[in-house]
Amino acid sequence: MATAQKASTMVNGVAVDDLFSTIEAVRATPSIAKFQFRIRNQWETASRNRSYVAGFTGANQELSHPEPFVLEADEPAILLGKDLAANPVEYLLHALASCLTTSMVYHAAARGIHIEQVESSFEGELDLHGFLDLNPRVRKGYNGIRVHFKIRAAVPDDRLQEIVQLGTGYSPVFDSLTNGVPVSVTAERL
Amino acid sequence: MATAQKASTMVNGVAVDDLFSTIEAVRATPSIAKFQFRIRNQWETASRNRSYVAGFTGANQELSHPEPFVLEADEPAILLGKDLAANPVEYLLHALASCLTTSMVYHAAARGIHIEQVESSFEGELDLHGFLDLNPRVRKGYNGIRVHFKIRAAVPDDRLQEIVQLGTGYSPVFDSLTNGVPVSVTAERL
Repeated sequence: MATAQKASTMVNGVAVDDLFSTIEAVRATPSIAKFQFRIRNQWETASRNRSYVAGFTGANQELSHPEPFVLEADEPAILLGKDLAANPVEYLLHALASCLTTSMVYHAAARGIHIEQVESSFEGELDLHGFLDLNPRVRKGYNGIRVHFKIRAAVPDDRLQEIVQLGTGYSPVFDSLTNGVPVSVTAERL
Repeated sequence: MATAQKASTMVNGVAVDDLFSTIEAVRATPSIAKFQFRIRNQWETASRNRSYVAGFTGANQELSHPEPFVLEADEPAILLGKDLAANPVEYLLHALASCLTTSMVYHAAARGIHIEQVESSFEGELDLHGFLDLNPRVRKGYNGIRVHFKIRAAVPDDRLQEIVQLGTGYSPVFDSLTNGVPVSVTAERL
């Protein structure tokens, strides 16, 4: 939504004038806020498959990445894979980590809060009794995820917690994962 | 959990003898089913950050990938990024796609169902009124995700739908995303 015609004020690397222009543009034309993100996935063998991230829809336009991003997946040997790439539940942690961080950084920028450094760690607990169908009371997915942020910013302590809450308060992946998303699945013969 | 001492029967590229050995090993020693997956994330600037996927815990052992996987994240220009990598909500779709596919393939292998080819597409709908804080009734995350599978396998039509249900029925990411996961977040000064 941003067209950088002029030099924008940068906070945390974010062009905040463009961010405010985006907000005003959505206020004026609400339909431009509707985005659709897409991927295609192709199975190779066993635990190996790859996704192609080529285009998306946003601001009433069909848009595309400069070149498609290719994301590989595999499983470690202990889970019968070749360990050639991160596995799906590790990608889920990366989706959460990257989204919390970017949401925090953008919303801090909009408030004029300068952040110098952000590091974070993510741990998710899984019990294979679920996946292996050995106990129907054990869920297949993560039982819980623990996140720890380390942030360098010249702000008082209470402001530091506020920065983190900008992440959890606005992150699309945090919302999707903590509150759940309806997923509809159809299939046909290839 | 598998140690391939002998040639294993392969179905869909999966060593099914090893898969059954894993199931028996978990029955004998339930604690080996507990896994913890981990990543560390480092912010670069604006929407750019990267995750390091190095080690994990499983089968009562500390385990590590042969070398750490590095996962980049960015946002497209329209969302004020440089479009150097997939964005967090695209990674979320990849986590879901890769997990549904692997879960389907493993559980089909365990049942002796041979799959020849799997392709899938994923579409997720987001309304930026949430992220931009323009309407508190609009959620920040995906409103919904549509998945479509195309499968080649020499099975009757009802078996084709059953294959898909092995994915949705056992996938850790599908369960995490559709039912939600508790995420706890702490922070300290760096």
